Amino acid sequence: MSNKRVRLQELKEFCTQALLQYGMDEKDAEATGEVLTMTDAFGIHSHGTKNLRMYIEKIKVNALNPKAKSEFIREGGSFAVMDAKDGMGMVVGRKAMAKAIELAKKNGIGYVTVRSSCHFGAGAYYANYAAQNGMLGIAMSNTDPNMAIPGGKGMTLGNNPIAYAFPRKNGRPVILDIALSTTAALKINKAKMYHQSIPDTWMVDPDGKPTTDPQYYQNGGALQPVGAHKGYGLSMLVESLTAMISGGAICRDVESWCFQLPSKNKVCHAFIAIDIDSITPDGDFEERAEDYIQYLKNSPKAQDTSRLLVPGEIEWEKYEDGVEKGISLPEDVVDSLEQLAKETGLKLHWSEDNE
Amino acid sequence: MSNKRVRLQELKEFCTQALLQYGMDEKDAEATGEVLTMTDAFGIHSHGTKNLRMYIEKIKVNALNPKAKSEFIREGGSFAVMDAKDGMGMVVGRKAMAKAIELAKKNGIGYVTVRSSCHFGAGAYYANYAAQNGMLGIAMSNTDPNMAIPGGKGMTLGNNPIAYAFPRKNGRPVILDIALSTTAALKINKAKMYHQSIPDTWMVDPDGKPTTDPQYYQNGGALQPVGAHKGYGLSMLVESLTAMISGGAICRDVESWCFQLPSKNKVCHAFIAIDIDSITPDGDFEERAEDYIQYLKNSPKAQDTSRLLVPGEIEWEKYEDGVEKGISLPEDVVDSLEQLAKETGLKLHWSEDNE
Repeated sequence: MSNKRVRLQELKEFCTQALLQYGMDEKDAEATGEVLTMTDAFGIHSHGTKNLRMYIEKIKVNALNPKAKSEFIREGGSFAVMDAKDGMGMVVGRKAMAKAIELAKKNGIGYVTVRSSCHFGAGAYYANYAAQNGMLGIAMSNTDPNMAIPGGKGMTLGNNPIAYAFPRKNGRPVILDIALSTTAALKINKAKMYHQSIPDTWMVDPDGKPTTDPQYYQNGGALQPVGAHKGYGLSMLVESLTAMISGGAICRDVESWCFQLPSKNKVCHAFIAIDIDSITPDGDFEERAEDYIQYLKNSPKAQDTSRLLVPGEIEWEKYEDGVEKGISLPEDVVDSLEQLAKETGLKLHWSEDNE
Repeated sequence: MSNKRVRLQELKEFCTQALLQYGMDEKDAEATGEVLTMTDAFGIHSHGTKNLRMYIEKIKVNALNPKAKSEFIREGGSFAVMDAKDGMGMVVGRKAMAKAIELAKKNGIGYVTVRSSCHFGAGAYYANYAAQNGMLGIAMSNTDPNMAIPGGKGMTLGNNPIAYAFPRKNGRPVILDIALSTTAALKINKAKMYHQSIPDTWMVDPDGKPTTDPQYYQNGGALQPVGAHKGYGLSMLVESLTAMISGGAICRDVESWCFQLPSKNKVCHAFIAIDIDSITPDGDFEERAEDYIQYLKNSPKAQDTSRLLVPGEIEWEKYEDGVEKGISLPEDVVDSLEQLAKETGLKLHWSEDNE
């Protein structure tokens, strides 16, 4: 079960063409293709082109509007509130972060909160989009509930992702993209498939007790917030900056974008851009960032550690490799894309990845 | 070893008078007293009036300037950069958050980044200060290194605290105040004192291996970031918003405010205020917040859980109790205050806390 490779540009074009068939206009289709392809290039395959087929299924049942005209319903000096009108999350995210960047250029910081959107994929993309514009970017989203709160049981709280990025002098931007559960549901699902036990900090059983048995996943169990009250509290912060302030759906009213395919997702996002150059007094942020990064990377290593990393380093290496040799995609992504190819009559040219 | 109680107003006045003796002007001394007393009222005794004696020791050796005139060295539409000039962190924090609130009133969001400050105590105070003004407030600080990075050993990274608060309809603001280590150094120190073992997610030993032995604390070991790469990455975010953008000291150049008493602390902070009322389209944020909180509090309980909490709830209950009966202080705080009373000739009236 080896990976297969496809040219980045071809994959992007494939996504664009597929969306055009379902009524999206060209600019929006290109934006979606760009976000999804870049996400795969970073190696975040759970949030990349694999999901395109599902987004299209969602379009087919009218739960996602490919022609949605999102609107800024309220604006002020450094903020904007967007009603995304159930449009494609990638189009929404790009437009909202572009607005945050525009506001930050004017006033140093820009904050855009978004309601009534659909799954925006990986926040890393939008954070990096700001960093590519010389900004510190932050992107976050609420989600449907999948975590228990400390002392509770069942899925009550969203594991609301937070991503950020900032530029550095001698390298690609630092990028972090995390959810607020101890670990990703995907990892638990894998353990469930292979009947492996899991650390007791990942999940609680249907009674709310920490469990090492992944069988409770989607079976009465719930994820645990990272650091217990820490992840719980940070999830509430994301909820307030996304849903509560925008007037959108809080977690219990958000429907899973993939498991509740016929329902509108109603997810909410927030984007913050900070214009480093206009703020930093001595104009050498990127040098200081580089200096800090080198300090971290050259700090003492534990036994068996060959190399210390900063967030985003692995992702950029995968990206460079993908640009050179074609993006390497695992079997489940290839299968999903091949199925979509069949449904749309489009074609992708694969090469074996023997590495 | 029972707690003792003292009237909140008397404790605040005691702090103010003590600082007046060491050259601080009245407004600044009152501000410091207010922050420290409120912090104790919240039950965060590690960051409250217990430390006043140490701050004064720091003043005596010229490592903290009680007369510092902090300055906004750069300002724009929605941001400001403060040089705190080695002044008292509580004075700095109040002034910086007040500025962020002022900026937010104008443009929806305000961001103030601060360099060359001293330990600001508990971020909860400043976040709540914004919430009392109808805002969502965020306060953060860098610290001297005390955590290992994933794959590393030794103290490399600060466990940079993040606090936030927002108002709700039928109760005191939600307040979260966390550091980015799995747990507080204080807890490890207590385990060390009592020769207890600790969970292996709290600390690494001098070789960088997870350890259950607290003896390595301040003995070659280092704290672990919460959620490994998650806490690591969030610590870098705080570092960028506080030190890197303000041009201040990053973690390795920050000196422990208490263990390096004769050195300037040089810590950096960041404050963000978001003017909820001017942003939220339907003007009912506090109602939505209340609704969300009730949903969380009434969600299913695990076995043996009598009550589910939201962040800050316990702190406000302690505060109400303290206002009514006098703040209840543990022995180490009482001892520190009594020693300061001796040194200053001031007096505190204690009552026994028999609860």
